[in-house]
Amino acid sequence: MSNSHIFFGETIGTAILILLGGGVCAAVTLKSSKARNAGWLAITFGWGFAVLTAVYISSSLSGAHLNPAVTVGIAVKTGDWNDVPLYIAGQMLGAMIGAALVWVAYYGQFQAHMDDNELAPPLGPDSGPAGPVLGVFSTGPEVRNPVQNLATEIIGTAVLVLAVLTQGLTPGLALSGTGALITALVVVSIGLSLGGPTGYAINPARDLGPRIVHSLLPLRNKGGSDWGYAWIPVVGPLVGAVLAGGLYRLAFA
Amino acid sequence: MSNSHIFFGETIGTAILILLGGGVCAAVTLKSSKARNAGWLAITFGWGFAVLTAVYISSSLSGAHLNPAVTVGIAVKTGDWNDVPLYIAGQMLGAMIGAALVWVAYYGQFQAHMDDNELAPPLGPDSGPAGPVLGVFSTGPEVRNPVQNLATEIIGTAVLVLAVLTQGLTPGLALSGTGALITALVVVSIGLSLGGPTGYAINPARDLGPRIVHSLLPLRNKGGSDWGYAWIPVVGPLVGAVLAGGLYRLAFA
Amino acid sequence: MSNSHIFFGETIGTAILILLGGGVCAAVTLKSSKARNAGWLAITFGWGFAVLTAVYISSSLSGAHLNPAVTVGIAVKTGDWNDVPLYIAGQMLGAMIGAALVWVAYYGQFQAHMDDNELAPPLGPDSGPAGPVLGVFSTGPEVRNPVQNLATEIIGTAVLVLAVLTQGLTPGLALSGTGALITALVVVSIGLSLGGPTGYAINPARDLGPRIVHSLLPLRNKGGSDWGYAWIPVVGPLVGAVLAGGLYRLAFA
Amino acid sequence: MSNSHIFFGETIGTAILILLGGGVCAAVTLKSSKARNAGWLAITFGWGFAVLTAVYISSSLSGAHLNPAVTVGIAVKTGDWNDVPLYIAGQMLGAMIGAALVWVAYYGQFQAHMDDNELAPPLGPDSGPAGPVLGVFSTGPEVRNPVQNLATEIIGTAVLVLAVLTQGLTPGLALSGTGALITALVVVSIGLSLGGPTGYAINPARDLGPRIVHSLLPLRNKGGSDWGYAWIPVVGPLVGAVLAGGLYRLAFA
Repeated sequence: MSNSHIFFGETIGTAILILLGGGVCAAVTLKSSKARNAGWLAITFGWGFAVLTAVYISSSLSGAHLNPAVTVGIAVKTGDWNDVPLYIAGQMLGAMIGAALVWVAYYGQFQAHMDDNELAPPLGPDSGPAGPVLGVFSTGPEVRNPVQNLATEIIGTAVLVLAVLTQGLTPGLALSGTGALITALVVVSIGLSLGGPTGYAINPARDLGPRIVHSLLPLRNKGGSDWGYAWIPVVGPLVGAVLAGGLYRLAFA
Repeated sequence: MSNSHIFFGETIGTAILILLGGGVCAAVTLKSSKARNAGWLAITFGWGFAVLTAVYISSSLSGAHLNPAVTVGIAVKTGDWNDVPLYIAGQMLGAMIGAALVWVAYYGQFQAHMDDNELAPPLGPDSGPAGPVLGVFSTGPEVRNPVQNLATEIIGTAVLVLAVLTQGLTPGLALSGTGALITALVVVSIGLSLGGPTGYAINPARDLGPRIVHSLLPLRNKGGSDWGYAWIPVVGPLVGAVLAGGLYRLAFA
Repeated sequence: MSNSHIFFGETIGTAILILLGGGVCAAVTLKSSKARNAGWLAITFGWGFAVLTAVYISSSLSGAHLNPAVTVGIAVKTGDWNDVPLYIAGQMLGAMIGAALVWVAYYGQFQAHMDDNELAPPLGPDSGPAGPVLGVFSTGPEVRNPVQNLATEIIGTAVLVLAVLTQGLTPGLALSGTGALITALVVVSIGLSLGGPTGYAINPARDLGPRIVHSLLPLRNKGGSDWGYAWIPVVGPLVGAVLAGGLYRLAFA
Repeated sequence: MSNSHIFFGETIGTAILILLGGGVCAAVTLKSSKARNAGWLAITFGWGFAVLTAVYISSSLSGAHLNPAVTVGIAVKTGDWNDVPLYIAGQMLGAMIGAALVWVAYYGQFQAHMDDNELAPPLGPDSGPAGPVLGVFSTGPEVRNPVQNLATEIIGTAVLVLAVLTQGLTPGLALSGTGALITALVVVSIGLSLGGPTGYAINPARDLGPRIVHSLLPLRNKGGSDWGYAWIPVVGPLVGAVLAGGLYRLAFA
């Protein structure tokens, strides 16, 4: 793959991932949305099928990592770190474009939400200081505890990256083109099973890119961008990826 | 493919698409339906599996576009516009037949709904002037703002058409016959993630054909057909399709 | 396929179909079930994955029709009616065994439900004279109107049978072994989109077999078996199957 | 497969299965989880996709039984019992590791849940003496009746094992790599349709391993481990597996 293919593939793929993933968060939480209060199952299927859509569109260009944790996990597996910066640059740019597109697609809903100065009911009972508008962009913990939150993100990402790394070991899966479908359902699984405590960032670009966009967007009453938490959904997924890559080399290679 | 295959395939395929898609809207919103208030997840899976069913049935005849936006996107990609009018004619006829079949299948529910003169709770809090009976046939915005609504339909359709155009690039997908399954889940994704503001027409025939049928059907208390909005779910998807086709030629070809 | 393979395959396959399909109805409606009030989406996915499970288990023996409407539709397509009685005999026996197994698996729930003489809330607002205990076994209309109910069952079954008959036309689908998955999701689609008025029998054996078992089981307070409605989910699906078979010969062959 | 591959594959696979399966139970029932009260559909899809994830990750090492009932069913089918103890040892160890990982990932939620001394609403109306904290680890009946509960577990497991054993008979399924997807959806089916009475252990290691961990963990107010019920989700699945294996040899071999 050429450098331009990698960069463009990761940019457009991650943009679509965050457009659809952030979109389902907007759909379920913002006022004047037909999907409001559609619940956690809608959130998790929404993110899973966002992965499906984004991976199918971009896989022919860049292999569709769309996640620095996946890129790092593959680098640990293969030992080849040459393209890692290029992948991550495309992912970060794409994540920011995607978050901006959510704002465009849900502009009227953001306006209605903030005009009424009515905050949507959070998905869980203790949603912390970050209100639902930030929740459209980035993740936040239900119980704020750095060690605990880090542990949850490490575990969730390790499962994701291990599933991606071992996919090539299932005979016939690549041949049938359903690998992305399996990965999408693995993401639904992680959301349903490990998303309860922190909202499963499991992807540094998915959390940091939209958080930057949140801090830049001219939204009234948008609240803070919760930068004190921002390092956890970056560091946790990267640690999980390294652990998964190491486990792969130890036991599956 | 012969002209008669194209026309008949698109007619029967789009009829089934709208029968099942309009059917799930009737099922969830009308009085005396077992599925009443089943929620947004039911709507989005219902439309996605409607695509699945309709595409598998009609793909051997016409390739199963079932959507003028898909037809236009493919024409932009290939540069061949010869069959475009024939495809769209079949799609419009099919959409009208499908909407009429929804009325047949849910005749008792339409009667019960209107006899009681009780309007079902809309899916979102601000469902606008178009009541739930029109919602069985056509889409409508939660926040009425032409520029905003157009932008949302453009973005949603661009994702759909880009996913359809890039499908051929995934090795093995056509061979395994699961392409329609992937497309169906992409439609679920767009519904969950981008359907909140306008109800995701993302298909001019899906919206305009049933709207015509709504205006013709002898339903008491059916309300207006909201013709002032009707151009948006036609123009938005076509613009999105041209954008997706152009992006494909630029970056994926 | 030998006669014994056909008969045994249809018997075990339909028994598993009705065990799982009736099971999800029991799970959602009976008192003291963990799944109580899980909603229409649970019902429709439950029946769809019941089809998936039953078809994969029995397809190597009999081709897994598991539905007289499918058997009749295939006979109309091929012109070969020789094995039709054998298929239907296995399907009826299997449906009765499956309904009895639901009673075994949910014995405690049936007892708790009836001991309290408390009827579960029906899924829709107007569930008619047949209470929820019959609803575990057989279908019933929300609005009782023979012509209307027949029309809904005809339309739903025609979609199902057309999807089954055209499946062979999708290249690669049989080869990849995912045909049953597609059929299962078509059944979810019909449930979501066309199940609202009558509960989508779309299968004479699925409705008549369990209804016979309901009339025979020694359940207190079980209510009547609603024999006045019983002909509709038999005749409607058979008419729909003949229409689908005829349409196939006309347009797809 | 070498002994070390079998043991390690079953250990890591079952650990991931229980991490994700126990995780969704924690997510839906514990206080301060974003997924709280997400309902039975979330539980059943969560367990199904847990199977998917765990099977894809471990299948290249050990064939991914991840369940003593599957191991016994395959042994009855093949007549080869040599590796059975090794498989079960790995499954039991993995199940315990997985349960401990749930505790790590949801540590803050366990604390919040118990600090408030507020018990989450059980999924069903009569959840018996075992409260929701045990429910994160092990299954329990809604109506406590050993014969009845045993029958339900036997039936559910027989369906699962029969589906696994007959999978090889579907042409193309192994080749396309989608066998694990089908198995996962069969598990969703069993959950939706047969999970209402006992919570569908259908796997002795899934129930006993986490129950041991529950009895060992230093959780305040955790309640008893309900050892009086513990034999049923061990014996029931094993009986179901033998029945399914016998039926396979009788009718499908």
